[in-house]
Amino acid sequence: MTRIVLLEQIKKVLDPLQVIRSLEEGFAAYSEGRVTVPPVGHLYFDEPPGDCHIKYGYLGGSDAFVIKVATGFYRNPDIGLPSSNGLILVFNRRTGNPEAILLDQGWLTDARTAAAGAVAAKYLARSKPQGIGIIGTGTQARMQLEWLSYVTACREVKVWGRDIQKAELFRRGMAESPFSIRVAPHLDDLFADCDLIISATPSREPLIHAGQIRPGTHITAVGADGGGKQELDATVFEKADVCAVDSVAQCREYGDSSYALRRGLITEDKLIELGRIVRNPGLGRRSEEQITVADLTGVAVQDIQIAKLVLESL
Amino acid sequence: MTRIVLLEQIKKVLDPLQVIRSLEEGFAAYSEGRVTVPPVGHLYFDEPPGDCHIKYGYLGGSDAFVIKVATGFYRNPDIGLPSSNGLILVFNRRTGNPEAILLDQGWLTDARTAAAGAVAAKYLARSKPQGIGIIGTGTQARMQLEWLSYVTACREVKVWGRDIQKAELFRRGMAESPFSIRVAPHLDDLFADCDLIISATPSREPLIHAGQIRPGTHITAVGADGGGKQELDATVFEKADVCAVDSVAQCREYGDSSYALRRGLITEDKLIELGRIVRNPGLGRRSEEQITVADLTGVAVQDIQIAKLVLESL
Repeated sequence: MTRIVLLEQIKKVLDPLQVIRSLEEGFAAYSEGRVTVPPVGHLYFDEPPGDCHIKYGYLGGSDAFVIKVATGFYRNPDIGLPSSNGLILVFNRRTGNPEAILLDQGWLTDARTAAAGAVAAKYLARSKPQGIGIIGTGTQARMQLEWLSYVTACREVKVWGRDIQKAELFRRGMAESPFSIRVAPHLDDLFADCDLIISATPSREPLIHAGQIRPGTHITAVGADGGGKQELDATVFEKADVCAVDSVAQCREYGDSSYALRRGLITEDKLIELGRIVRNPGLGRRSEEQITVADLTGVAVQDIQIAKLVLESL
Repeated sequence: MTRIVLLEQIKKVLDPLQVIRSLEEGFAAYSEGRVTVPPVGHLYFDEPPGDCHIKYGYLGGSDAFVIKVATGFYRNPDIGLPSSNGLILVFNRRTGNPEAILLDQGWLTDARTAAAGAVAAKYLARSKPQGIGIIGTGTQARMQLEWLSYVTACREVKVWGRDIQKAELFRRGMAESPFSIRVAPHLDDLFADCDLIISATPSREPLIHAGQIRPGTHITAVGADGGGKQELDATVFEKADVCAVDSVAQCREYGDSSYALRRGLITEDKLIELGRIVRNPGLGRRSEEQITVADLTGVAVQDIQIAKLVLESL
């Protein structure tokens, strides 16, 4: 029989520290070429606009293969529904039997994206950041902040959003969190006080430029998960001392770093996969004054790892 | 909430005549360019050997999109499991919500393949066949015969398999069916008595050659659903008066007709999609003496149609 796992069960059993460890292993396996990840499947819709993507694959030697389906329908909030949804299928890799269906409503995708942000911060941010800067005010921005609590002791936060009222709502919504959150009226206020910065917006034009970035800053950008999206100006990659990505192959196609590659501001050998940094932390930040950046486009190995962890934890 | 539908429920509600009608509509929509079907996703495994494919898409104007996952692990019978498995996901096309999961264990794939054979026979076989010939002795061979009962009154059957004992088991296993079944010791015996022939084997080399085929014969081949598989020799397509396929695009890549195309024995304009014949039956058989052939490789629109029908029938 196929096990059906609901979101409440998933949230109950998942240990964030285990997720972070499991993603580290996943990124490392990916960079070592031990993960089979075929090209992502896509469906696009109009009236109303929406999309569906299918990410799937398996780790060599694993007992399971995983198929993740994620949907995004951006007008859903108009009818009182969240814009993201989805589920994850886990199959037995020796028999093809569907072992489990995780009806996570897209939450695991949000969680593994936030957990990847935590992994990037762990290896690339200063050991004692003075302030966390959150760019964006949506679900992913909130989850990125929540997951940072597992890898840094810093609790000083500034949040900025295009709509300052949404930033204020973000601040109020996290009143119960361990963080001390202030709203930054301008992006420059955020850059002045924060050295661990996460950008989690659906922006289609660069929000962050090289000139804004002080020495010692780390920036993780997670918004550019498909063509046409961009949060970091290409010059950021030229200026940065360390440019980490989750997948070089994917960042050839899209992601913030793809613009820097295409404009010739950097060459591909400047991009270091997170999995290589996990295995060899010396490839990450080497001094308090370096500028580091992580471009996370999202890879199926994250879905594979978090789904397997859910099943192991049940 | 997402509805979970089990195989027993599916078998209970599905009306074969409605399936056949629904597939006819699906094939027609496909041939009219009204179906979005991205390339099939594949995963391959070894130790033990197996594969997984993901077929997905939607009909223009439909309320649903469908993702079908099918697995094949051919050593499963050694450990008492069926070799095929799978499930179908049905999503709301306007919100991305997963509306239903059909835990059909691969049965719907078998059923829609058999139903497509019935559609081909309906439009291409003689109106009153003298005998049905079944080549192959597995699950799909049995289901092809069962589904033919909805489109022809003929009940005289000959079955042939490489292993005559399996053919005998096939005959005995269908003792309760309305068919009168005899085992053909040689393939030529089958061709001598039968004019509505279905080939449903996993053969990787041609079993059927042009010289064996008498005037008036119709042959449907369903086994060549991937590269390297072949049941009909390329000369069969050269000899046939009508060459039907489910998808010309797919038959460029694989399927029995792909060998005839590649050898230059026919050109693509000899291949007529089943959907065009459904809309214009004059493109099918035009006399009792014509030889007709149907090369069915399996297209996602069949999965889409049968999944939607299950949900409508519940």
